[in-house]
Amino acid sequence: MPRRVTLKQVAARAGVSYQTVSKVINGKAQVSPETEARIWEAVRELGYRPHYIARSLRAQRSRLIGYSWPPSPPDQPNPILDLFLQSMFTAAEEAGYYLLCFPHHYGERQIESYRELIESARVDGFIVSSVEFDDPRLAFLMEKDYPFVAFGRSNPDWDFPYVDVDGAAGMVKVVNHLLERGHRRIAALAWPEASRVGQNRLDGYFTALQRAGIMPLDAWIARGEGRFDFGYQATLQWLDLPPDERPTAIVALNDVMAIGAMRAVQERGLRVGVDVAITGFDDYPLVQYLTPPLTSVRQPIWDIGQRIVSMLVALLEGQPLQERHVLVEPELIIRASSTGPAG
Amino acid sequence: MPRRVTLKQVAARAGVSYQTVSKVINGKAQVSPETEARIWEAVRELGYRPHYIARSLRAQRSRLIGYSWPPSPPDQPNPILDLFLQSMFTAAEEAGYYLLCFPHHYGERQIESYRELIESARVDGFIVSSVEFDDPRLAFLMEKDYPFVAFGRSNPDWDFPYVDVDGAAGMVKVVNHLLERGHRRIAALAWPEASRVGQNRLDGYFTALQRAGIMPLDAWIARGEGRFDFGYQATLQWLDLPPDERPTAIVALNDVMAIGAMRAVQERGLRVGVDVAITGFDDYPLVQYLTPPLTSVRQPIWDIGQRIVSMLVALLEGQPLQERHVLVEPELIIRASSTGPAG
Repeated sequence: MPRRVTLKQVAARAGVSYQTVSKVINGKAQVSPETEARIWEAVRELGYRPHYIARSLRAQRSRLIGYSWPPSPPDQPNPILDLFLQSMFTAAEEAGYYLLCFPHHYGERQIESYRELIESARVDGFIVSSVEFDDPRLAFLMEKDYPFVAFGRSNPDWDFPYVDVDGAAGMVKVVNHLLERGHRRIAALAWPEASRVGQNRLDGYFTALQRAGIMPLDAWIARGEGRFDFGYQATLQWLDLPPDERPTAIVALNDVMAIGAMRAVQERGLRVGVDVAITGFDDYPLVQYLTPPLTSVRQPIWDIGQRIVSMLVALLEGQPLQERHVLVEPELIIRASSTGPAG
Repeated sequence: MPRRVTLKQVAARAGVSYQTVSKVINGKAQVSPETEARIWEAVRELGYRPHYIARSLRAQRSRLIGYSWPPSPPDQPNPILDLFLQSMFTAAEEAGYYLLCFPHHYGERQIESYRELIESARVDGFIVSSVEFDDPRLAFLMEKDYPFVAFGRSNPDWDFPYVDVDGAAGMVKVVNHLLERGHRRIAALAWPEASRVGQNRLDGYFTALQRAGIMPLDAWIARGEGRFDFGYQATLQWLDLPPDERPTAIVALNDVMAIGAMRAVQERGLRVGVDVAITGFDDYPLVQYLTPPLTSVRQPIWDIGQRIVSMLVALLEGQPLQERHVLVEPELIIRASSTGPAG
């Protein structure tokens, strides 16, 4: 790194006092236009890098990364938020950036937030998460050709840099685990078809069953909002199926549906992990403390945050991306909800 | 609001073209120092407000609020993070501000983060949460006389603007609820004495018992890290006390200790809410789905986020504060863990 030019050198070059330079650069001095011009000229010639703001004015760079995310419904935790943010803040700080966080809006106003931040030169780029098919934020940023990195994929024919969890690989691990324990009738608590993440995870369910030569009954796929009540109600219906159709295992695409399924099984006097195996997805911190503890799939969130920021910083600094599309594999955490008390 | 000065007016006054003004203001033009000085002079005379960055350079204002918080341990959720952030982002945006979020560091480096943000004029003020006694962040910001608002109180003799939850009032509600249901032997899962929040909540426990003429046994107060295992182990010990000392109710200062207590009670073959009443604090989204659902205390987090930001904005804009110290009362949410199946 070249040695930093000092304010003193700028003052000497401009032929004014140190205090005058400092005041002008900090916008606090009323000096003649000529003096001000001479100071800025010296700043430019010497390559002095003053405070962030003055620097930004010259470089049109804010060294801020914009990030916004949809809030979780009040009865549901966001399983990754704290770790994901901390990881991104840390990676950004190491590269000399900070995150500017802004509220999530719906409809037209969502895009307006992005537009305002671009037009006011507030941020140099964006991180976008909770990505869906036809995501209007991605469409807008691609059209504007403004730098961003997404946590998640979108339409297959849209090309943009992303990091994503291989949800299908995670579900393959879950279903293989259940197959190994002898389960053949495995039901799935899924999201509506429009859900990009849900579709990806469900693909893994079908893939693993197909490899095992099992064709799931239509009745084993329940689609709904990923809430407790949906998991609870769908499970009650499954428990009413005739014995040869009744699932012996239930895989949920998130933890909170799995918790609903556990409640339904327990209310019927059955034992979770013994009579019916249940698994979740996300490995929310509290699920290890449920009775029984919940088998789940853990996403390497710290790693994802670090990679997303380093990709975006590379884009902002004109460096080549090592990888433009990164898929990370999640980890299966096996607990008693799928194995019974023996673990 | 005064009518906005246009770039065109600036160009006319400086006697240069619109394009030149635009380029100079955006740091993209190489014009003579004299021309540049003339343009900035016109900008100043007319009061033109260019892009945020140029404006900040003149006004020394970034319209950014700095916020950092300690990450939760991996086995514990942060019960308020998402809602608190969304509330603050929304209030800030409405006032024309954004949040700049930065990583939490420990030791000396923690203060360095604050110092850097001040010295680089990155943020106009701070929001500080997870406040403790002798909090070094507050000490530093008070010494620097830099604007901030805290979520939480600290040393009684430190005077700074804050919003806090009245944790003592919350615990009084919990204990009164248990007293009304006939409990007389009520134990508490508490934090170490150094915990400012823990001390406040525990005060409410003592206050309510004292009002009822009950002197709690020393053995009923267990202090430790607010984790599942601590709640679990302490409860096992209580269940081993002689019948006339054994608690019939357990109040925990957070939800995760309460969940540990539930596990211990259930492992001994006792029924939570029937044989032993258990209550938590924070009303974490998932606790309504436990078996049985957990009685807990809910903090009005959205309201707190809004108030903190509006107080800080008032400080930044030189307006008088309506209230400098705001205490909000939390709400008791009664569920089956303290009442049995009848609710």
